[in-house]
Amino acid sequence: MIRGALDSNAYDKIYGAVHGISGVLGENFIELSERARTEEHFTERLSLSPAMFLGSCRVKMPDPVDEPEIYDQIFRTLEKMNVGAFFYIGGNDSMDTVTKLSRAAKSWGSHIRFAGVPKTIDNDLMLTDHTPGYGSAAKFIASSMLEIAHDTYIYDIPCVTVVEIMGRDAGWLTASAALARNEYNRTPQLIYLPEVPFHRTQYIEDVRQALKKSKNVVVAVSEGIRDEKGVYISAKEAVADKFGHMQLSGVGKVLENIVKRELHIKVRSIELSILQRCAGHLTSAQDLRESMEQGQKAVKLTEEGCTGFMPVIRRISDEPYRYEIGQVELAEIANKARSVPREWINEAGNDVTEDMLRYIRPLIAGETGTEWKDGLPVYVPIPHLNHAGE
Amino acid sequence: MIRGALDSNAYDKIYGAVHGISGVLGENFIELSERARTEEHFTERLSLSPAMFLGSCRVKMPDPVDEPEIYDQIFRTLEKMNVGAFFYIGGNDSMDTVTKLSRAAKSWGSHIRFAGVPKTIDNDLMLTDHTPGYGSAAKFIASSMLEIAHDTYIYDIPCVTVVEIMGRDAGWLTASAALARNEYNRTPQLIYLPEVPFHRTQYIEDVRQALKKSKNVVVAVSEGIRDEKGVYISAKEAVADKFGHMQLSGVGKVLENIVKRELHIKVRSIELSILQRCAGHLTSAQDLRESMEQGQKAVKLTEEGCTGFMPVIRRISDEPYRYEIGQVELAEIANKARSVPREWINEAGNDVTEDMLRYIRPLIAGETGTEWKDGLPVYVPIPHLNHAGE
Repeated sequence: MIRGALDSNAYDKIYGAVHGISGVLGENFIELSERARTEEHFTERLSLSPAMFLGSCRVKMPDPVDEPEIYDQIFRTLEKMNVGAFFYIGGNDSMDTVTKLSRAAKSWGSHIRFAGVPKTIDNDLMLTDHTPGYGSAAKFIASSMLEIAHDTYIYDIPCVTVVEIMGRDAGWLTASAALARNEYNRTPQLIYLPEVPFHRTQYIEDVRQALKKSKNVVVAVSEGIRDEKGVYISAKEAVADKFGHMQLSGVGKVLENIVKRELHIKVRSIELSILQRCAGHLTSAQDLRESMEQGQKAVKLTEEGCTGFMPVIRRISDEPYRYEIGQVELAEIANKARSVPREWINEAGNDVTEDMLRYIRPLIAGETGTEWKDGLPVYVPIPHLNHAGE
Repeated sequence: MIRGALDSNAYDKIYGAVHGISGVLGENFIELSERARTEEHFTERLSLSPAMFLGSCRVKMPDPVDEPEIYDQIFRTLEKMNVGAFFYIGGNDSMDTVTKLSRAAKSWGSHIRFAGVPKTIDNDLMLTDHTPGYGSAAKFIASSMLEIAHDTYIYDIPCVTVVEIMGRDAGWLTASAALARNEYNRTPQLIYLPEVPFHRTQYIEDVRQALKKSKNVVVAVSEGIRDEKGVYISAKEAVADKFGHMQLSGVGKVLENIVKRELHIKVRSIELSILQRCAGHLTSAQDLRESMEQGQKAVKLTEEGCTGFMPVIRRISDEPYRYEIGQVELAEIANKARSVPREWINEAGNDVTEDMLRYIRPLIAGETGTEWKDGLPVYVPIPHLNHAGE
């Protein structure tokens, strides 16, 4: 997107709002065009750096009708800075923010164009084949699952390993664990997603059956699996510490304890934790390419006068993988989340289908040229987010 | 080591014992020389594959005086196979096994030479500067800590992140987290190792002070930290589930809960888990080179008739990094573990010194050419460890 704007004749400066809309409200901007022009390799390094360079926020914007003054402030700030187009990057919450801004801009009579730019590892935005960020997270998850498989094989006793993967409401990330299977590795043998209710007794039976075929059973599970009443499994087995405070166990721990109690064999659980969203050194080349293309498309469309839209990916074919970049109205996106289709999960609800794998496979393709120095990856410095009161 | 033996005139076949000494006792061998000669890229891929290709075991060998018959069986098996030299790869427990074998061989009158070959991420073997495996694990830990740092910076509210790292008795792995610091990143601000007793009140004060300087505080902690009486911190705050079963929390969770209760701010904990020992795609080139050199040295020394030894690394200088491969008697190694020297930990016991960093830095240097296919790393198939009763 920075590249799209630098190449553009319509724009001469690019500002970044630090911590998203909070940065706009607090007039906390950094001039990205300046850094891109003066710092060597800035955009390349930035494209491979983990997490969000501009930071994140948890601001839920009010309805423009209820609190017009906050929109008034934002538009005055942006017009004062002579802003022609405003791009807001993120997932569903970010699309909600930019949808409201876009709508308010129309009634306010602002000429600023507003675009949402998709970026979320959750892959749960509507009306797009997949979202930038997802392919890279899936690549980390599948690679880690393969490495974990090698680690489980070292034992000569039966062993169950439960791997907890992100995904509160959708199973996209957990499904990618299945890509670790190859001609010698059948793990993970069991995969549980939030889209299908989780049954404790069925789970015990699934593990028992899997142990008959392999000494080393690996279970991939979404953090957000629920029972048939919709209650999170992680919430059902809360534990109390010695002070009596209740603690939410991770769902991996819960599934570990079920195996321990019911099957009395060696079992452990692993959380892939935030590494799955920040392992910049394992960025997927395909994912990076598509995110650049969507950013550039967003810039181009605003140049043509478009507003209130989000670029999307439309898949043309799986093998060979072909796609095109399109666009949809922001109003069609906001406040809905996309789940894994039921038909991409097997009937028993403990695995994904070959259709699901055909969908993910092209998205993890290709490696990026991470730059290394003194044995560590080189990322873009983030001084603007670094300090507290200094 | 395979390469050393393939190049040797003294040996014409290489057998691998599946699951270590269990494989010898059960006469479960695979012919590695055959695979190395017929499978393309076998040794290169094997050198980058995660975990242990031959598997692991938990057999504690009895004293040869107490149970001579088990040694009798082993020597008869090995002589029947016409074995000239026996190499046992691992950490302290493996060195204990091969020390006993070597000692028993002498009284049994066997001509087989016995060598221990060091390989443990724990880095706790005596009389060697460091052990193969450590540099790669340290590279994974330092890279992940830098990526986690980027992830913590996204929040605009104070936040503490506790990262639990392996190390039951020694802090070598946790110390490597400090390598993530650079010109813009000061995290982890606090590092706690098992070598120094952990004080809860001091920890709370440390975090409070760190939060004055930075919004984002990262704590790196060894799983094995203990209080002044030697009691594991993880054991002190066991929690009960709803059935009343006590569960050991990870130490990261314990430190998370202390911050939550005492400081009432956003806090989370992360376990790097087994990924730190199996992330083959992040192997350190320097570590790989040294492990090859030590394997080749072991083969060469047995050719010269040596037995009962382990190759070691002797450091000549830190910058530029220079070392030589030497050897020590197995009897000097076994049953002692090497800790981080107190002088490499700061006086307050909450950080490591520049001497510690100078020690680790050269060991994580350089990247290896991981081979990728369809977006995933290519490793050596492990069919011999794969299945249960099939």
